[in-house]
Amino acid sequence: MQEKRRPRILVTNDDGMFAPGIKALVEVAIEFGEVIVVAPDSPQSGKGHAVTLSQPLRLNKVNVFPGVDAYECSGTPVDCVKLAKHIIFKNQSIDLCLSGINHGSNASINIIYSGTMSAAMEASLEGIPSIGLSLMDFSFDADFLVAQNYTRHLIRNVINEGLGNCNLLNVNIPKLPADEIQGIRVCRQAKGRWIEEFSEALDPRGQKYYWLTGRFQIEDEQSDTDIWALDNGYISVVPSGHDLTMHESIDELKHLENITYAIT
Amino acid sequence: MQEKRRPRILVTNDDGMFAPGIKALVEVAIEFGEVIVVAPDSPQSGKGHAVTLSQPLRLNKVNVFPGVDAYECSGTPVDCVKLAKHIIFKNQSIDLCLSGINHGSNASINIIYSGTMSAAMEASLEGIPSIGLSLMDFSFDADFLVAQNYTRHLIRNVINEGLGNCNLLNVNIPKLPADEIQGIRVCRQAKGRWIEEFSEALDPRGQKYYWLTGRFQIEDEQSDTDIWALDNGYISVVPSGHDLTMHESIDELKHLENITYAIT
Repeated sequence: MQEKRRPRILVTNDDGMFAPGIKALVEVAIEFGEVIVVAPDSPQSGKGHAVTLSQPLRLNKVNVFPGVDAYECSGTPVDCVKLAKHIIFKNQSIDLCLSGINHGSNASINIIYSGTMSAAMEASLEGIPSIGLSLMDFSFDADFLVAQNYTRHLIRNVINEGLGNCNLLNVNIPKLPADEIQGIRVCRQAKGRWIEEFSEALDPRGQKYYWLTGRFQIEDEQSDTDIWALDNGYISVVPSGHDLTMHESIDELKHLENITYAIT
Repeated sequence: MQEKRRPRILVTNDDGMFAPGIKALVEVAIEFGEVIVVAPDSPQSGKGHAVTLSQPLRLNKVNVFPGVDAYECSGTPVDCVKLAKHIIFKNQSIDLCLSGINHGSNASINIIYSGTMSAAMEASLEGIPSIGLSLMDFSFDADFLVAQNYTRHLIRNVINEGLGNCNLLNVNIPKLPADEIQGIRVCRQAKGRWIEEFSEALDPRGQKYYWLTGRFQIEDEQSDTDIWALDNGYISVVPSGHDLTMHESIDELKHLENITYAIT
């Protein structure tokens, strides 16, 4: 055990370096290893799995967390992970990626829109065990103490036991005092979607603009989902991957193979 | 049959209104119904499932395709679909969404980074049968005739037969003459990832910048994948969804439920 080097841990998020959530995460991460922080230099909520292809990227070292190397990146959360791995860690192995702690839920379909989860997913694609963490509290003054406590236990467990065939956990934490949290549920992503609405208005030049808003609609009644867990006071942990294939539809749609090229 | 209204078809892409691929797609789509085009006003390759939350969105009617209503949108491909549904179609049902034809492959893990596929996925989340189409030819002068022919057959099939429980097809077409295409394979997303590289240089002010580049690495040898199909001259059709849960890992990670809150 003495010869084992300390784990190398990458911490990132989508809210940027000055979000209270990333500070809470760094405070826990440094208990476990050598931490490097690479976070976006502007808010990147809802950026999904976007990468920056048509622009150059900048990386600036900043002094934010005492004793921890931290870098602001001009790109998306996924860009942060790519730059961290290749430029900062110089392709040395990274033992753990932690993304968050996000302000607001990334349960259900939100995993697809979330910059926080996309950063963790990008790291997991590189083979790095990764945890994306979200607290269901949008307040700047959110209390992260309970979230930090469970995060600490999860990190310890993942470092000691690994994640098996899975490289990615989507962890959502309800806004509850410690004694009201019912525990952890390992569960599946609930079916749900956003019912969009657009706030429509005129700019000072009289030109119309639209601003995206909406509300989440759950379309899943079962008790083995992340939404059920959160609604019932549990922390949800969804083992997640990258395969979007609907395997059960492959046979059902085999008839499409009968299509042949033909002049119509 | 006479009373049935013509299908309402939304066409979008991630390369913008003047990409040859969207013109090729519109030409086929108008054979099947009432087409409305909503496409980004700037290139949006690699934008994944990003949505625009911190900016207003603009929508401008443009005259690009004779007899077809077309709108440029200032946002991402996913924004285009959301605005199309709520502002342009005014929440009337849309019968089909076609996204593309993209210049370059969206097979394997590229579905996660692709603006083309994310637009189709967003429409599928709204319950709209959706097809994302890509031709493996980056040239502006790419020949879309073969792609158009197969697209025509696919659209006819989807309009007549539906997609069953699936709402999303990821279709990739190799760059081959018609007589060298071996047919269609309905298959799964291959495991693979990008090996990133960063081109590193100094700007005119002497500041360092990084530009993302890389190469795709297949990590899947089996013959039931999209990459195998494309490598062997087939058009790949992957029935796709939105569930990122690794269901087989839920039991394996149940031990995480033993974690309890504790002062450490």
